[in-house]
Amino acid sequence: MPKKSPSGHTARMVRLQKKRCFVCGQDNREGMKLRFRYDKARDCYVCRFRLDERFMGPPGYVHGGIVATVLDEVMGKVNKIHGVVALTRAMKIEYLKPVPLNKSLRAEGHAVSVEGRKHTNRGEILNAQGEVLARGEALFIAIDVERMFGKAKALK
Amino acid sequence: MPKKSPSGHTARMVRLQKKRCFVCGQDNREGMKLRFRYDKARDCYVCRFRLDERFMGPPGYVHGGIVATVLDEVMGKVNKIHGVVALTRAMKIEYLKPVPLNKSLRAEGHAVSVEGRKHTNRGEILNAQGEVLARGEALFIAIDVERMFGKAKALK
Repeated sequence: MPKKSPSGHTARMVRLQKKRCFVCGQDNREGMKLRFRYDKARDCYVCRFRLDERFMGPPGYVHGGIVATVLDEVMGKVNKIHGVVALTRAMKIEYLKPVPLNKSLRAEGHAVSVEGRKHTNRGEILNAQGEVLARGEALFIAIDVERMFGKAKALK
Repeated sequence: MPKKSPSGHTARMVRLQKKRCFVCGQDNREGMKLRFRYDKARDCYVCRFRLDERFMGPPGYVHGGIVATVLDEVMGKVNKIHGVVALTRAMKIEYLKPVPLNKSLRAEGHAVSVEGRKHTNRGEILNAQGEVLARGEALFIAIDVERMFGKAKALK
């Protein structure tokens, strides 16, 4: 079950800013507007999505960078399970099969390990048949939100 | 000096599609529209860019996935030096410092090694002071364009 993130003014401000996140910000008119939900039974984060021609890399397929972007986001969501806000320090992506445009896809993020402030998570993108098309592993470092983004108030 | 890619109908079609690439496609109205140029003296690809709030991750900073996207693209451009079209097979990104929005940035892509169809390239994103904010290494596999994307004609 996800723990509550640290509350207070800065945390609220960060939540406001999160609505403008390129991937999941519902207030970012030009963003991807993906929705991620916590799957309690499987203790993981899931996003069901479909991407149009805007996100093209090779003809007919999603850009490799956008594949990495969705994986970064779904792996990042996993940090909520441990109640921390954390930034990506390193990420490894494997492209197993081309990820098609205009098809139903699923991204999943799972926790791997926690060592102090170091959170390691893994993610996958699967097609409707359950084949893994791409997978990632990332190291996130938990941060003190107040200290790092207190100064970002001016951006509200 | 970049070699010419294999020509013919499919190669032309792929070039047309490339104008719709999310990162560098000048015909993708909602894409990033970045421009990459070959630096002959340094035998590398360079892109000078600046990203606005649309690409936000943490408040005030570029989304980690978008950082990976720019690195994927600049490393991918390096394959042109060897005259091949190649797809990303694996990519490793290190986030050294947060990448700021609305600041002049530079991405660079360099060749590391070529073994048969395996092309390994590295990339960096630097700020105006020349500090490396993020770096990547990627393995690309050269493909037969005609064979892989001949079927994509219908997408034109």
